[in-house]
Amino acid sequence: MTDTPAFDQAATDRSAFLAEAETLLGPRGLTRDPELMEPWLTDWRGRFTGAALAMASPASTAEVAELVKLCARHRVPIVPQGGNSGMCGGATPDKSGSAIVLSLRRMNAIRSLDTDARQAVCEAGVILQTLHEAAEAHGLRFPLTLGGKGSATVGGLISTNAGGTQVLRHGSMRAQVLGLEAVLADGSIYRGLTALKKDNRGFDLKQLLIGSEGTLGIVTAATLRLVPALRDRITIWAGVPSLATARALLLYCQDAAGAALEGFEVMPQLTLDDVLAHVPTARAPLAGRHEWHALIEIVSERDSGPSLAELAEELLTGAFERGLLEDATASANEAQAEAFWLIRDEIAAAERAKGPAVQHDISVAVEKMPEFVDYAVPLIEQAWPGTQAVAFGHLGDGNVHFHVIAPPGVEGLAWQEGPGKQISGQVYEMVTQWGGSISAEHGIGQLKRDELARLADPVSLQMMRAVKQALDPVGLLNPGKLVPLA
Amino acid sequence: MTDTPAFDQAATDRSAFLAEAETLLGPRGLTRDPELMEPWLTDWRGRFTGAALAMASPASTAEVAELVKLCARHRVPIVPQGGNSGMCGGATPDKSGSAIVLSLRRMNAIRSLDTDARQAVCEAGVILQTLHEAAEAHGLRFPLTLGGKGSATVGGLISTNAGGTQVLRHGSMRAQVLGLEAVLADGSIYRGLTALKKDNRGFDLKQLLIGSEGTLGIVTAATLRLVPALRDRITIWAGVPSLATARALLLYCQDAAGAALEGFEVMPQLTLDDVLAHVPTARAPLAGRHEWHALIEIVSERDSGPSLAELAEELLTGAFERGLLEDATASANEAQAEAFWLIRDEIAAAERAKGPAVQHDISVAVEKMPEFVDYAVPLIEQAWPGTQAVAFGHLGDGNVHFHVIAPPGVEGLAWQEGPGKQISGQVYEMVTQWGGSISAEHGIGQLKRDELARLADPVSLQMMRAVKQALDPVGLLNPGKLVPLA
Repeated sequence: MTDTPAFDQAATDRSAFLAEAETLLGPRGLTRDPELMEPWLTDWRGRFTGAALAMASPASTAEVAELVKLCARHRVPIVPQGGNSGMCGGATPDKSGSAIVLSLRRMNAIRSLDTDARQAVCEAGVILQTLHEAAEAHGLRFPLTLGGKGSATVGGLISTNAGGTQVLRHGSMRAQVLGLEAVLADGSIYRGLTALKKDNRGFDLKQLLIGSEGTLGIVTAATLRLVPALRDRITIWAGVPSLATARALLLYCQDAAGAALEGFEVMPQLTLDDVLAHVPTARAPLAGRHEWHALIEIVSERDSGPSLAELAEELLTGAFERGLLEDATASANEAQAEAFWLIRDEIAAAERAKGPAVQHDISVAVEKMPEFVDYAVPLIEQAWPGTQAVAFGHLGDGNVHFHVIAPPGVEGLAWQEGPGKQISGQVYEMVTQWGGSISAEHGIGQLKRDELARLADPVSLQMMRAVKQALDPVGLLNPGKLVPLA
Repeated sequence: MTDTPAFDQAATDRSAFLAEAETLLGPRGLTRDPELMEPWLTDWRGRFTGAALAMASPASTAEVAELVKLCARHRVPIVPQGGNSGMCGGATPDKSGSAIVLSLRRMNAIRSLDTDARQAVCEAGVILQTLHEAAEAHGLRFPLTLGGKGSATVGGLISTNAGGTQVLRHGSMRAQVLGLEAVLADGSIYRGLTALKKDNRGFDLKQLLIGSEGTLGIVTAATLRLVPALRDRITIWAGVPSLATARALLLYCQDAAGAALEGFEVMPQLTLDDVLAHVPTARAPLAGRHEWHALIEIVSERDSGPSLAELAEELLTGAFERGLLEDATASANEAQAEAFWLIRDEIAAAERAKGPAVQHDISVAVEKMPEFVDYAVPLIEQAWPGTQAVAFGHLGDGNVHFHVIAPPGVEGLAWQEGPGKQISGQVYEMVTQWGGSISAEHGIGQLKRDELARLADPVSLQMMRAVKQALDPVGLLNPGKLVPLA
């Protein structure tokens, strides 16, 4: 007997898998180059870093299907990835290096855009901004947008059921998907791209796949809803004395403006101050100070009918008469509207600049949000002296971003790992007690999986595990994400 | 040894089950009286008749849960039932008599109605008409209606994802359900009544249960969306030269009326003639004859803003100028609007009076419907000489009811079982080839399960079977319905 090292079966298997994968995908479709892989192994917020056996970039649905079959044969886990701009580490592999990252970015064709039917069939790798531009070029609009539009892909948006600032009127990504194509865990292809407005042939498999974060299937293409392009928009900035009044103002606007109401965002004075301090070009929209500020967007898709300016005037007059606002101003042109939105869009950056914080993307029933914020803010600030709790965002959706900023002078990482984690635990417990959600729009990924296991209704958890087990019995698809272990 | 009959274990088990069920539910909650059970063992169209061990009528969600646990222990299948007004035999047990019918009709409380949040929490047995009236009494409206509103229950509407004539604007039942409570196959209770506009905590279990026809869980209550009451409506009757023109008219109305467009139904002249012949009080809305007729409803929820009469005028003028209609009239008052809708509502009865027919509730992509009808009608009429094929209904949803009327003088039942079945097979094959659905709004039940098995995408079928197996491994819930056997 010689003294050679023991035969490494695992290494041999990996080599065989990689050789087959390279044959299947070609050199453009598979890389193990650490430099090329590196940007895709850490999430964009830098919270999670993993390792991968390789990064696959198939060029077609057929290639994705073949690759999944290959992975199934070799038991190689798959981490699907779009623009890598998710908020919960859902597209970052674990540190074991046993999985492949399956990037959908090469599949970036808009297969068709039908102006008459108002639909676009997009491959998973189409970037949101690209879709916006394609729709605009045809006099149409894709009615979902968010901060990461320059990197977020259609596949990622669908897999995480992304939200944004237009959900109030148009719904989240779930509402934009008219048809879906996905590769399942056994490599079979779910073909549901035909947009049927009505279809009662059994379980809603499309909606089951949407928001499943790549744990039930890999989205390869979708038929997406387009809407008429905007002819005009007016953005109103209103100062209100309380969040409860902001909610009353929202109800009034919904009644009075109907479908013309596209967005309704809120922020406290404190948050406005932070943005004004952080962004040199930002100006306070109103002269005075108000406990809360509301940003209201009304839009029109039609040339005919009453002008938007008349509607804005009517809204403001009516709201003043009803005592629903202290002061308000309406944008007179597009530059002013953009200046108002700049303030909203810069909140996250301003908060980051201020120092360490823990962030919570939470929702409760829409009508309970003012009460919840009034309850939770002082409770957190008293329990952790020196912290500052702020809530801002999508009041119309019952969804606020609830950020707790560390006391001045603390060491960031230590605070986040210590008191920060405790605070998050308590925020999630409160929101659960109120019947709300610990993830309104960002998903679960790996960031919140333990909290989901701790706080979710056991019956829901059991249903999720049963469905996951049914559709991915081997656990090939995005392991360690979303679905808590039993 | 004596000559007594062999010990009947099955009968003993059934007796034990019935005794336990009676203890659990009390005399009002369980009956075996053939006379009391009889109306609920045949579907309302008289196509399916079954038998049942007993009919259970629990009074609460807790009782449903306990009953399901009892059924699970004794392996007694459960056929959930609402108003028994479904179209596909989904609530009718098989003939074996081994199952119980679980009626939800006793659970008929509207648990709460929140005018501010515009939500009603209804138990499964609330009748649609009752919900309409409750919403109206609060200045609100439940935006889904259909012919069977006097018997259809909330639970049945949810389990079958019911449609109707307002889907164009408001969506099907799926879009009205903000929260859901259901009892699962193991007797656990899925508690999702809290209406969260945004919730990304994993798989969309609520949508999975909706439309699953009681095969994955028994809906016990739901939080339903309400909308503002209508202030005004105008119904326009338009004569158009073709279905393609009707589709162009629909697109024009969508652009010009926006959210004010609530309904858009079509019928051919032939169908109008049949209704006029059948309903003595019905009058032709237009003086002349037209290949196709469109019924267009525009509505307003607001007192302010331009009047609906102006919008109707603008629509008609614009449509004439664009050559989109040959003639049209708008209702001048509510009585006229109702007279127009009477014609639409009486189509089914008029067709029935005409003689035997086979009916198909089908959908294709909205933009393809005119082409499909123009293709399918002559094809069927030529292949089966003497038949008359008519399509009418929800053009705006890509959903028509495609009826094929038997040649004059044939014997009804024989024709339906012979040529009728062949015609249905061909209609379903055509619609599948066009990427459409063999059930747009009526569901699958037992009526279409074999056709689903024959024509559905094998990948979808496999997913459905896997999900069914995962959530109801014993096959306790509504066996023989919807999900084809493997």
